[in-house]
Amino acid sequence: MSAPRVFRVGIAGLGTVGAGVLRLVRANAGAIAQRAGRRVEIVAVSARDRRRDRGPDLAAALAELRWHDDPLELATDPEIDVVAELIGGADGVAKDLVEASLARGRPVVTANKALLARHGGALGRLAAERGASIAFEASVAGGIPVIKALREGLGANRFSRISGILNGTCNFVLSQMRATGDAFETVLAEAQARGYAEADPTLDIDGWDAAHKLAVLAAEGFGIPVDLDSVYVEGIRHISPLDIEYADELGYRIKLLGTAARTARGIEQRVHPTMVPESEPLALVDGVDNAVVIEGDAMPRLVLQGPGAGAGPTASAVVADLIDLAQGRRLPSFAAGPEPGLAAVSIAEHAGPCYVRLMVLDQPGVIADVAAELRNERVSMEAMIQRRNHPGNAVPVVLTTHPAQEAALRRALARIGQLGTILEPPRMIRIAP
Amino acid sequence: MSAPRVFRVGIAGLGTVGAGVLRLVRANAGAIAQRAGRRVEIVAVSARDRRRDRGPDLAAALAELRWHDDPLELATDPEIDVVAELIGGADGVAKDLVEASLARGRPVVTANKALLARHGGALGRLAAERGASIAFEASVAGGIPVIKALREGLGANRFSRISGILNGTCNFVLSQMRATGDAFETVLAEAQARGYAEADPTLDIDGWDAAHKLAVLAAEGFGIPVDLDSVYVEGIRHISPLDIEYADELGYRIKLLGTAARTARGIEQRVHPTMVPESEPLALVDGVDNAVVIEGDAMPRLVLQGPGAGAGPTASAVVADLIDLAQGRRLPSFAAGPEPGLAAVSIAEHAGPCYVRLMVLDQPGVIADVAAELRNERVSMEAMIQRRNHPGNAVPVVLTTHPAQEAALRRALARIGQLGTILEPPRMIRIAP
Repeated sequence: MSAPRVFRVGIAGLGTVGAGVLRLVRANAGAIAQRAGRRVEIVAVSARDRRRDRGPDLAAALAELRWHDDPLELATDPEIDVVAELIGGADGVAKDLVEASLARGRPVVTANKALLARHGGALGRLAAERGASIAFEASVAGGIPVIKALREGLGANRFSRISGILNGTCNFVLSQMRATGDAFETVLAEAQARGYAEADPTLDIDGWDAAHKLAVLAAEGFGIPVDLDSVYVEGIRHISPLDIEYADELGYRIKLLGTAARTARGIEQRVHPTMVPESEPLALVDGVDNAVVIEGDAMPRLVLQGPGAGAGPTASAVVADLIDLAQGRRLPSFAAGPEPGLAAVSIAEHAGPCYVRLMVLDQPGVIADVAAELRNERVSMEAMIQRRNHPGNAVPVVLTTHPAQEAALRRALARIGQLGTILEPPRMIRIAP
Repeated sequence: MSAPRVFRVGIAGLGTVGAGVLRLVRANAGAIAQRAGRRVEIVAVSARDRRRDRGPDLAAALAELRWHDDPLELATDPEIDVVAELIGGADGVAKDLVEASLARGRPVVTANKALLARHGGALGRLAAERGASIAFEASVAGGIPVIKALREGLGANRFSRISGILNGTCNFVLSQMRATGDAFETVLAEAQARGYAEADPTLDIDGWDAAHKLAVLAAEGFGIPVDLDSVYVEGIRHISPLDIEYADELGYRIKLLGTAARTARGIEQRVHPTMVPESEPLALVDGVDNAVVIEGDAMPRLVLQGPGAGAGPTASAVVADLIDLAQGRRLPSFAAGPEPGLAAVSIAEHAGPCYVRLMVLDQPGVIADVAAELRNERVSMEAMIQRRNHPGNAVPVVLTTHPAQEAALRRALARIGQLGTILEPPRMIRIAP
């Protein structure tokens, strides 16, 4: 038997992740070859700035590579077996490259959650048509092999819920707010100073990065189309130190969770701050870690936790995909298809318990008015805390509800917000699960 | 293209796990076929008692199966593609069946950690010779896909450490001892009454079950031969409520950990009660859950947690292996081979911090004698607690050491145990990592 041919990789993008992949493939070449059954080599590259200094350890490696000024040439370079798209962005050249590669039957590895969340359905169909694989372990939760867990490790299961801490920036900010008691803006500024948050933090803080990842997880786990528009998205800007204090008192931690859950009406997909009971593993994940809980019918609960970003972890996931492809495996593009009738359902149909904080004018009868509005929408209170009494002043009133229909609760809160004794718009934070 | 042929499974053993596999393959047949690319069906079975009642839901399924009175016939039945060995036991018919199947080039799925720990090396060589796969995800940590994580999900990594809670019975007993303050024997009796511990608990409580699993993990992660004799094994019988109390005070939780770690001299493999800092994820895993932490060079830390036993989780892992094999994948039998010169090293060469508890006669000079013995072996104390003073009585003295060589510490403790003022043999509990 002749020695198997080298598996030749072309990389598009040499930022943190691209350079990390180049380093990892060189550092662990022997072990990777053992796992893959053949050598895996980066042979070509395209990056914006060819002359940028990427570290002395990579200088020799970079000098040996075939450079393409136009990334799209990686789709046609005849001396390449697979394209690793590490450029990023939902559209533009990343999308063009992935499309061009798949169209020619060339497999693609990508870490690009935004691309997948926007165009994953179309790209998956293109891949299936052309008999090429699109692999995307690195697009969700960094080095945590959650796609492989859903597709293979727990592949015998019918899932009921996939829920996780999918954005390290938000988890760091919420952890720090709890540790320090500081306000959101203060902690965000600190996170930016420490490099845990971007100068423009919108994508992270407002929940969009987590939503991209959740759309990919939901599609993979439930076989529904990847569809960002089906994901309800709410960020963490409105979380106050007061809410964190009450959460502690009630036995919860506030986490930005992305949750895809099977309900009687279909699959709900939602990203929002969530009160997680402190007995749950996700409640204890602090700092920039990511974590995902997968609930199946045979395996009731698998928790995966680890770094969800960074050069090493992301490169670990990219190279794992390269090893799978080097073995000649055909990876399905998202699950083979949903069960009949499984559709995305809107957040309005969500039913679950909720935390509500009101700032009320401390005078007799306020709670009665609030309770009446809830009752009119058939929302049932589970607990109520109104500790401080300063007659005539604004005081917080916190209540938790029994499982309530989202639309009904929102209608009740809208009317409660219009009461003359309610001084700020009511705040709601959904309680897990 | 013609429809792919059904993947035909023969099951040996219809206990909890075997019946669970049969149920799962039937319940999720559609989803499994989508993942596998072909239908997976149990077509033949061998079990000790054909007439035993296995539940009304399985009666029809069992009636359709081809029964073999002799399990070894599953190795030769021409209408079978894969054998699932779910009999158990390191030797006897389970070993005969796996050998006979592999010898004929027939792939095997097994949940049998004892078999692998004792004969995994030979079986792996046989499988490689005959071009057959032996898959064993279910043999370690139940439904947690840790073998796949080591081999594939983190396949690009060079591992430095694999450490885990691998035995649910021990974790339940230790969790309950901490929750109740009760003695080991009391809690073990409760665990037996609740069905969490066997009538003969030796295999669990004395660390052997965890050692079987660790030997498999170490071989898979580091490419060394599976070799139970290289695993240092110490169980939890000697853990006292006093130790648990001191652990809490010092910021640790006592867990039975199985640890395989890369050291300068080779791979150490050890199962023993371990003081885990309460900030570590493994410290917070209570009850019958299993959990594994994998540390690699690219992915610094992946934590996997979930049920480590039971019909559903174990069946989940068995069927995941069946899906991989149904896809025609060749699974390597343990890693492709170790790095040059990587060998197992003995516990005597282990170096790490340690907790030591002495019961001493409370009189002047005792600590000086203890300190002198430690100094003579170059063991350096980090902290010492001698709180209660009852002159003339036995009092506990607890000390923690800086990283110390195991053999040196044992020599020191042997001499300390012989001091006239030391009333019980010294207790040592290694501190993680």
